[in-house]
Amino acid sequence: MLGVSCFAMKSIDTLLHARWVIPVTDGDPVLDQHSIAIHDGRIIDILPTEQAKSQYQAHVENDYNKHALIPGLINSHTHAAMNLFRGMADDLPLMDWLNNHIWPAEQRWVTEEFIQDGSELAMAEMLRSGTTCFNDMYFFPDITARVATSVGMRACVGLIVIDFPTIWAQQADEYIEKGLDLRDKYRSSSLIHTPFAPHAPFTVSDEPLQKIRMLADEMDLPVHIHVHETAHEVEEAVKNTGKRPLQRLHELGLVSPNLVAVHMTQLTDDEITLLAKSGSHIAHCPESNLKLASGFCPTQRLLDAGINVALGTDSSASNNDLDMLGEMRTAALLGKGVAQDATAVSAEQALRMATINGARALGLDQSIGSLETGKYADIVAIDFETLESAPVYHPVSHLVYSCNRNQVTDVWVAGKHLLTARALTTLDEQKILRKTRQWNDKISSQ
Amino acid sequence: MLGVSCFAMKSIDTLLHARWVIPVTDGDPVLDQHSIAIHDGRIIDILPTEQAKSQYQAHVENDYNKHALIPGLINSHTHAAMNLFRGMADDLPLMDWLNNHIWPAEQRWVTEEFIQDGSELAMAEMLRSGTTCFNDMYFFPDITARVATSVGMRACVGLIVIDFPTIWAQQADEYIEKGLDLRDKYRSSSLIHTPFAPHAPFTVSDEPLQKIRMLADEMDLPVHIHVHETAHEVEEAVKNTGKRPLQRLHELGLVSPNLVAVHMTQLTDDEITLLAKSGSHIAHCPESNLKLASGFCPTQRLLDAGINVALGTDSSASNNDLDMLGEMRTAALLGKGVAQDATAVSAEQALRMATINGARALGLDQSIGSLETGKYADIVAIDFETLESAPVYHPVSHLVYSCNRNQVTDVWVAGKHLLTARALTTLDEQKILRKTRQWNDKISSQ
Repeated sequence: MLGVSCFAMKSIDTLLHARWVIPVTDGDPVLDQHSIAIHDGRIIDILPTEQAKSQYQAHVENDYNKHALIPGLINSHTHAAMNLFRGMADDLPLMDWLNNHIWPAEQRWVTEEFIQDGSELAMAEMLRSGTTCFNDMYFFPDITARVATSVGMRACVGLIVIDFPTIWAQQADEYIEKGLDLRDKYRSSSLIHTPFAPHAPFTVSDEPLQKIRMLADEMDLPVHIHVHETAHEVEEAVKNTGKRPLQRLHELGLVSPNLVAVHMTQLTDDEITLLAKSGSHIAHCPESNLKLASGFCPTQRLLDAGINVALGTDSSASNNDLDMLGEMRTAALLGKGVAQDATAVSAEQALRMATINGARALGLDQSIGSLETGKYADIVAIDFETLESAPVYHPVSHLVYSCNRNQVTDVWVAGKHLLTARALTTLDEQKILRKTRQWNDKISSQ
Repeated sequence: MLGVSCFAMKSIDTLLHARWVIPVTDGDPVLDQHSIAIHDGRIIDILPTEQAKSQYQAHVENDYNKHALIPGLINSHTHAAMNLFRGMADDLPLMDWLNNHIWPAEQRWVTEEFIQDGSELAMAEMLRSGTTCFNDMYFFPDITARVATSVGMRACVGLIVIDFPTIWAQQADEYIEKGLDLRDKYRSSSLIHTPFAPHAPFTVSDEPLQKIRMLADEMDLPVHIHVHETAHEVEEAVKNTGKRPLQRLHELGLVSPNLVAVHMTQLTDDEITLLAKSGSHIAHCPESNLKLASGFCPTQRLLDAGINVALGTDSSASNNDLDMLGEMRTAALLGKGVAQDATAVSAEQALRMATINGARALGLDQSIGSLETGKYADIVAIDFETLESAPVYHPVSHLVYSCNRNQVTDVWVAGKHLLTARALTTLDEQKILRKTRQWNDKISSQ
C-alpha cells in the first residue's frame, strides 16, 4: 500500500499545512485545515491537508497549525526610504510638515546611501508585518529596485516626475528619461515593476503629464499620483487654474484604467461617477489622512460605485509605520465612522483592499493578490492563537480587528521563504538597526 | 572612598535605570538617562542615572537602556470578562449587535466561571500591553475584584446597576445592595476601588439613579455610565422622556465631578459648557465608537473647554482588543481628522488621556497616573529600538505613533514586577490559552 501511494505522489518544492487558508477569492471563503502546494515559485494547488499529504511529496513541508495563510499584503502607496524620517515631525498640518520639515530634510539628507539604508529598514519592517509587494514613489528608484531585487521582495518602483530639480533629476524631461532607462533595465524582472509616478497635479505641469499619459498608454503602465489629498490643494488649483485637479487630469486624458489616484479625500458625486466609469483606481491611505487631517476618503461610497479601492500606508513620516495589518484595521474602523454605518467597509472588504484590489490597481492581479493556482506564491502565515487575540470566532474579522503585526511569523515571495519564525532570511537585522542608529544620531544632531 | 560612598547610600527595594523616563507631569518633560527609585511599592525618587547609582543601593537593579519608562496605562472604560466574546459579532450596528448577539450570548454563557476565565484572559492581555489599572463595568464584579487582587493588578470594579434582571441581580435595589456589600469588602484594599456603574440612562430609571447619586455624593465615589453613545439613543430618549439623556442626568443631580460619562459622541455646545462647568469627566472610546459607527466624540473641543478626557477601549467585543497603546494612537489620529486640524489631540495629550486624565476621572490622581515621588510605582517599560519603530526622534510621539503593544517588556504595579521580559509572573499563560480554547470551542459549537 505504502509503495503504491508513494508512486502516485507528485514531487514538489514546498507544502504548507495550515489551520486556515484565506485565499481572498470570490465569496470570501475560509478554508479549514487546508494546504498550499508550491512549485517553481508558484501555487500549484490548494486542497484539504489530508488529501495534500497523500498527493504531494515536498522538499520542504511545514505545519502552521495555529495559523492562517493569507495572500501577501500589497502596500499601494508608500515612500519606503522615508522610514529614516519616521517620527521626525508629528502633529503638524500637511503644508507646514512638507515645507518646513520634510522637504528641507530631504534636501539635507537624501543621498544614494540614505535610500539604500532607508529602503532596507522599510523592507525589513514590511516583510515582518506581512507585506510582500509595495508601490513606491521616491528619489533614486534605481536603488530601491536594486535593494528589493537583492532582498527578493516584489516592488513597483515609481518613475518619479516633478517639475523642480531634486537630487535625482533637474527637470521633468530628465526625470522621464531616467525613469525609462530604469524601466528598460527591469523589463524582464518578475519582481520589479515600473509604474509612472508623477508626484501630484500641483507639482507637475501639463506638458510632462501629457507625455506621461502617452507613454503610459503605449506601455500600459499605471500612473501613480497624489490627487485631492486636501481641500486646500483643490482650492488652490481652482484659484490658479480654474479647475479642480481631477478635472485637469481628465482633460489631459489621465483618468483611465491606468490611473492610481492616491488619497482622494475631496470628491463630488460627479467625480465619483467619472472615476467609476473610467475604471480608475484609488489608493486609500487612512492613517496618513487622519494624521495630517487631510480629510476623510468616502471609502464605502467608492466601493458602492464599483471603484477599485486599494490600501496604502503612505510613508513612515506621516503614519508612522508601514504596517498593512494595522492599516486594514484603521480602514475598516474609519470607513464605518465616515459612512455612519457599522456594516460599511467590512473585514472582508478591508482584506481585499490590502490584497487583490492592490494587485488590480497595479495591473498585477493575474499574478498576485490572492491565493490561487497559477499565481506566485506570495504568502503570509499569521499566528492566530496569542493571548492578545484569542479566541477566534471568524478568521477574517479576527485577522482585521484582532491581529497585530508581531503575529506574522512567516513570509514567502514567489515561494522564497523571506521570513521564517520572524527572522529575516535575506536582510541583516542587526546591521539595519546599527545603520538606523547612525542616521538617527546624525539627523538628530542637526 | 568606596567605603564612604557606600555608607552614604540609601538601601531601597528597586532601582530602574532607563534611556528615557516620561513622567507625564506638567510641561510634558522627557528625562534622558534617568532612574526611578522604588521602595515599599512607591516611587521615592526620579533622578539622573549617574546620581541614582551613587545615591541608592537597591535589592533589585535593572537596566532598560533601549527603553522608555512611562506611567502604567489606565483603561477608563472596559468590560474585561467579555474578552471571551472577542470577535464574536463584527461589522454590525450597535442595537443589532446588542439585541441579537451580545445580550443573548451573555444570557447563555455568563457564569462565575466565565467571569473568572474571561477576567484572567483580559488581565493577561492588559498587562502585556502596558495597562496597570482598568475601570470595569460587568456582572460578578466580586469575581473580577478577586482575580485582580490575586494577579496584583489595580482595578475599579463598577457596582453595576440595571433595571432588568440578569444573572447578577434581579432588580435595581438588589444590584445596589450587592454593590455596597462588595464596596465594604474592599474598603481597605489599595488595589481595588468600587465606583458606581449604572449601565446607561436608557437601562436605569430615575429612582435607582437618584439613590446612586445620593450614595455617590456621600461616599465620594465616581459614577461610571454610558451616555450619548449614539444619535439613536438621544433621539429615543427625547421621544420617550422629552429630554436628552444628559439633561435628565443633570436634573437628577448626577452631572458633577463624580460623573465619568462614557462615549459622548453627541454633544451640543451647551452640553459641553455644562460638562466643563460641572467638572465632569469623559471616557473617550474611539475604536469602539468607530467600529459600531456610533459617531465622533469631539475630543479636541472637549479638551479646549477644559474638560478632563480619559481614554478607554470598551470591551474586546467592540474593539477588538484591550490595547491602550493602540487606543492612544487612534485617539490622536481620529482627533485630528474630526477637528480637521493636524495639531489637534497631540501625542502628549493622547498620553495624558491614557494616564493622568484616567486617574483623575477615577479619583485616583493623588496615587497613580504619573511618575512622581510618593505615587505608587505603577510603571511600564517599552523597548523603543525595534526594526518596526526605529529611529527615535521624539520619545512621546514615538510612543504614540510608532510603538506597538508587543514592545512592552516589563510592568510593575505598586512596585511588584508583574511582567518581566514579556512573561507574566502572576498568571499562567498556557492555562489561560487552554481555558480560552475550551470556551472558544463551546461557544462556537452553539
